[in-house]
Amino acid sequence: MSDRKDVAIIMGSDSDWPVMEEAAKALDSFGISYSADVVSAHRMPEEMVEFAKSAAPKGYKVIIAGAGGAAHLPGMVAALTTLPVIGVPVSLKNLDGMDSLLSIVQMPGGIPVATVGIDNAKNAGILAARIIGSSDASVSKKIEAQLSELTDEAKAKGAQLSARRNTKTGF
Amino acid sequence: MSDRKDVAIIMGSDSDWPVMEEAAKALDSFGISYSADVVSAHRMPEEMVEFAKSAAPKGYKVIIAGAGGAAHLPGMVAALTTLPVIGVPVSLKNLDGMDSLLSIVQMPGGIPVATVGIDNAKNAGILAARIIGSSDASVSKKIEAQLSELTDEAKAKGAQLSARRNTKTGF
Amino acid sequence: MSDRKDVAIIMGSDSDWPVMEEAAKALDSFGISYSADVVSAHRMPEEMVEFAKSAAPKGYKVIIAGAGGAAHLPGMVAALTTLPVIGVPVSLKNLDGMDSLLSIVQMPGGIPVATVGIDNAKNAGILAARIIGSSDASVSKKIEAQLSELTDEAKAKGAQLSARRNTKTGF
Amino acid sequence: MSDRKDVAIIMGSDSDWPVMEEAAKALDSFGISYSADVVSAHRMPEEMVEFAKSAAPKGYKVIIAGAGGAAHLPGMVAALTTLPVIGVPVSLKNLDGMDSLLSIVQMPGGIPVATVGIDNAKNAGILAARIIGSSDASVSKKIEAQLSELTDEAKAKGAQLSARRNTKTGF
Amino acid sequence: MSDRKDVAIIMGSDSDWPVMEEAAKALDSFGISYSADVVSAHRMPEEMVEFAKSAAPKGYKVIIAGAGGAAHLPGMVAALTTLPVIGVPVSLKNLDGMDSLLSIVQMPGGIPVATVGIDNAKNAGILAARIIGSSDASVSKKIEAQLSELTDEAKAKGAQLSARRNTKTGF
Amino acid sequence: MSDRKDVAIIMGSDSDWPVMEEAAKALDSFGISYSADVVSAHRMPEEMVEFAKSAAPKGYKVIIAGAGGAAHLPGMVAALTTLPVIGVPVSLKNLDGMDSLLSIVQMPGGIPVATVGIDNAKNAGILAARIIGSSDASVSKKIEAQLSELTDEAKAKGAQLSARRNTKTGF
Amino acid sequence: MSDRKDVAIIMGSDSDWPVMEEAAKALDSFGISYSADVVSAHRMPEEMVEFAKSAAPKGYKVIIAGAGGAAHLPGMVAALTTLPVIGVPVSLKNLDGMDSLLSIVQMPGGIPVATVGIDNAKNAGILAARIIGSSDASVSKKIEAQLSELTDEAKAKGAQLSARRNTKTGF
Amino acid sequence: MSDRKDVAIIMGSDSDWPVMEEAAKALDSFGISYSADVVSAHRMPEEMVEFAKSAAPKGYKVIIAGAGGAAHLPGMVAALTTLPVIGVPVSLKNLDGMDSLLSIVQMPGGIPVATVGIDNAKNAGILAARIIGSSDASVSKKIEAQLSELTDEAKAKGAQLSARRNTKTGF
Repeated sequence: MSDRKDVAIIMGSDSDWPVMEEAAKALDSFGISYSADVVSAHRMPEEMVEFAKSAAPKGYKVIIAGAGGAAHLPGMVAALTTLPVIGVPVSLKNLDGMDSLLSIVQMPGGIPVATVGIDNAKNAGILAARIIGSSDASVSKKIEAQLSELTDEAKAKGAQLSARRNTKTGF
Repeated sequence: MSDRKDVAIIMGSDSDWPVMEEAAKALDSFGISYSADVVSAHRMPEEMVEFAKSAAPKGYKVIIAGAGGAAHLPGMVAALTTLPVIGVPVSLKNLDGMDSLLSIVQMPGGIPVATVGIDNAKNAGILAARIIGSSDASVSKKIEAQLSELTDEAKAKGAQLSARRNTKTGF
Repeated sequence: MSDRKDVAIIMGSDSDWPVMEEAAKALDSFGISYSADVVSAHRMPEEMVEFAKSAAPKGYKVIIAGAGGAAHLPGMVAALTTLPVIGVPVSLKNLDGMDSLLSIVQMPGGIPVATVGIDNAKNAGILAARIIGSSDASVSKKIEAQLSELTDEAKAKGAQLSARRNTKTGF
Repeated sequence: MSDRKDVAIIMGSDSDWPVMEEAAKALDSFGISYSADVVSAHRMPEEMVEFAKSAAPKGYKVIIAGAGGAAHLPGMVAALTTLPVIGVPVSLKNLDGMDSLLSIVQMPGGIPVATVGIDNAKNAGILAARIIGSSDASVSKKIEAQLSELTDEAKAKGAQLSARRNTKTGF
Repeated sequence: MSDRKDVAIIMGSDSDWPVMEEAAKALDSFGISYSADVVSAHRMPEEMVEFAKSAAPKGYKVIIAGAGGAAHLPGMVAALTTLPVIGVPVSLKNLDGMDSLLSIVQMPGGIPVATVGIDNAKNAGILAARIIGSSDASVSKKIEAQLSELTDEAKAKGAQLSARRNTKTGF
Repeated sequence: MSDRKDVAIIMGSDSDWPVMEEAAKALDSFGISYSADVVSAHRMPEEMVEFAKSAAPKGYKVIIAGAGGAAHLPGMVAALTTLPVIGVPVSLKNLDGMDSLLSIVQMPGGIPVATVGIDNAKNAGILAARIIGSSDASVSKKIEAQLSELTDEAKAKGAQLSARRNTKTGF
Repeated sequence: MSDRKDVAIIMGSDSDWPVMEEAAKALDSFGISYSADVVSAHRMPEEMVEFAKSAAPKGYKVIIAGAGGAAHLPGMVAALTTLPVIGVPVSLKNLDGMDSLLSIVQMPGGIPVATVGIDNAKNAGILAARIIGSSDASVSKKIEAQLSELTDEAKAKGAQLSARRNTKTGF
Repeated sequence: MSDRKDVAIIMGSDSDWPVMEEAAKALDSFGISYSADVVSAHRMPEEMVEFAKSAAPKGYKVIIAGAGGAAHLPGMVAALTTLPVIGVPVSLKNLDGMDSLLSIVQMPGGIPVATVGIDNAKNAGILAARIIGSSDASVSKKIEAQLSELTDEAKAKGAQLSARRNTKTGF
């Protein structure tokens, strides 16, 4: 049984896990394999370098990196790998994640980070699936199904909302 | 000779081209084929829907979408395709692109846009290459080479800076 | 009995309803008919197109659209109808609705959205009434009455405040 | 020949005219009549009150008010009329119009201002046309035509962009 | 016994009272007389005009006006009186009072509002005392005493802090 | 001939003079005497203390202090005098004066600074006049006259704007 | 036994202590001596001047100053000493400490404040240790040990996270 | 003659030199030795690691690191050295350096960066001198002299301003 995973989920601190877990759940829903680990740019910089350099050789296809505040992890990893790196800005106590967002998205020319919304690790997982799906039809079909489900759910909620209101007096 | 392209570069207005051209140049440097077109979410919404729905069937692997202000194009296209969509926030006359950035990156759960820095279409092109490279070793090798070049250039500039300064009096 | 409504209240998610309900209440207070439904730009984009295109033919006079984050619904609907569209920026967990506000108000030239304050769906309902009232004297009279009520309420509160304070020692 | 106009364009200062003129041009394009005047909330507050109270009786259907900085004109006029008031945030030397936007859009419950984008008086003119068009089919037809023109223009620009690029070496 | 007061405290809504009460307390501490009332720029615009125009003739020396969101009250009153007007930006549910601050402080040339910090009505009361004290030595002496008290209190707190810590092990 | 002045205009740097000169011009227009000097909180802190402590004894009635960036001058002077201190946030190369504004206006309870708009020294001069006028009828009459002039100018500009437009073809 | 301390921790108010205590704890962990006191720029300006001028003669090597809002303490002290001054922006009720940050960091050329993150007094303590360690090898060794501990802790948390997840069903 | 330098000035790109040169000039004015080089966190990450780890052994006492946008250099270097690291946020085309500031200052607990104002490399140089001066009396004396010069210059400018104005007609 192989140990190879498609996606590496890393985060600067284990306190980011409640946010980052949504990326894992999204990947689960697509049946995509992944690992999850703490890799801190600031607290374990050399391990971070090692991780980033070995990610492609180990067979990962996408890296998802979450970090908050002066969020250097996604960008630093992107500088040390050829893989697409998805950055998740995690909001901390102050500033609502605006510092995290700018620290991740405003990378210099040459080293891109694919940034998703603040605390939106779910979208990081789905984006990883889309990236894998761009060369794997079995995954892209699941994304298509996920989009259909989203539509169906939204329609059902709309129907409930309209129905509930029609039974209320005065509507 | 095939008409099939790997990347679609779209933008809300032809006035975005001076910014978006850098994505094209980046793709050129990796030898990745692409098309470039105006697809406006607001001025041609039905054509936008049609474009987005047909992108995957036409064989595109990645879509790069640039837009400014209330920048809806990347997110709307992402809602209508299974492909990874890269969003480029284009700065307009006011607000330095902060409106564009937030309109692109803060997508709801379910529909991710891979957002790069404000006006940083070059990074959108490189991110597209990384995505393609995640399943195509010939491309990922070129990215590795590009990273080496970046390192060499940065080192050379550093050497010039150090050298130039040592010849100045008082240093 | 006709099914025709004057105002369509739509929102990106049923979680927006506690905010958007205030628009419904305001319309109720003017006796203006409306429907309320979930129409998501991102989760049901094709239904959204269909809705927007059919709104004017169905007899709606005004559309009120609420959305949060990368809030594309009001602008996309405005691109697909000739009706006036009122946008309500809904605040989410981070950023206090600033992302929603900018995503809604900063529309490109040609496609306006009549934006009201963050989470201020009440004002969206009143604005719809003012729009209808601009060609319907029976409605504009009710708005006049509403303004008078506002004045009376504010005066009464002021009187209470002044009175309460005069009974306190030292005033 | 009647002196009655459909739309009143007012602004806090004649220095706002270069911005506000675009509202006039948009109304011209729809054949909608309007007046244009300086009505300053701060420099002529009593005239402002008088103007606002007389606007509906004079036959105006919509008011467009532009102002910058602590932009009180649109909201104050809205408090004194039953007509729909469209606010145009005008950017001044500092802050890129963010002060103007917040001063106009964040109105209290009860008194809405239909706010458009910063410096986007063109959209104010079009929004006024949409409001008038919601009860006047001859105007709504012109808006439909304007939307078609927008589509055609955008398509033409896209075609030019695609064509120009195909003749360049290396594409 | 005269009804004449030195300071008028006004606010846009009685919900501002918990914030504005601090201005009253500050004035109490200096023995300065004042009235307190709701005067809403938007809900009772004509009463606001009347109030502002009559304030100087009635003998008020300073006006303190608190308001939140699109906070027009201080600026509108300043446009209608020759008295110094102190503006208190009141924070509402979103944006932490930044909208209120900009709406109050960014007045056009010619009509100043003396703006204090967000929710800082206490400072508005003290500023009113300083203004009155600039021509009334009995008041300025009380301000001098208040400054001394502030110093004494701060010193005492510092002494407590230092003392408390020196008894802790390891300090 | 007395050396006593009513208003002290101070600023952190002589580079602030082009902004602060407008305060002087405003005071000139009211015939109010003033001095103008560089008093830097950071570059001459002890002189600043001395200045602030001696201002009231020297007979000044109001202090106008302009500063940019970490703008500490107005607040520090306010801590050392009983006089009303007016703060002018001066914009520097970055941030459009937002740093200056927050550094000046967000004073702690106990020490108010009467803050005017960014770069708006003119309003600082007029506010000083209003403060002096609150106990000097000859000055308050001039403010009344200034308000009338403002109204007349605004009306004249409005008349010009309306007239100019009526002679243009197509209006 | 000497009374001389290496670091002075000062703050504008004792309400800042819960934040500033982390600086004390960090210094404790390095065995660096310090004092802690309230020194308010606004409430005890003359004592502040005295403190700042005497700090270097008293033998302090570094000053840590915490303050919130219009946070003038760090900059004013820096203007009155030759010692390195570390500023800690303390967040208050509104604005998440952005006002504090800008008031501290945006000092004019000539008077630097070494600013750390919002509410991050722990880092202020560590920075003081690094400064002392730059000329004291016994301290720099402790910093090296602290960095190793950080790495070990982060690794252990990562191991826990990875392990915990492998025992969950479906991973 | 030794090659050992006291301060290392590094920057992410040679385009930062016009800003960072001011740090060099400041160090020159104190007679403190330094090197200057390009060390890019993103373009030469492994060289950056090597540089940071070797800085203390090579005898550097302080590191000054300038970077713009997603400015990771100062924080990454701080994670890899025990030396005090001073960060200079460099402003780029958009956002006025706010992204750079937040990316540098908002470091996690454990790894401080001593941040100075946006583009304020001069203060970085002076801060380095203060740090060195905290254990080197010859340097702290020069800082004292520099502070005196600042005072003299500010006074002279104030005298000029006062004098120039007294000779102008009408003052």
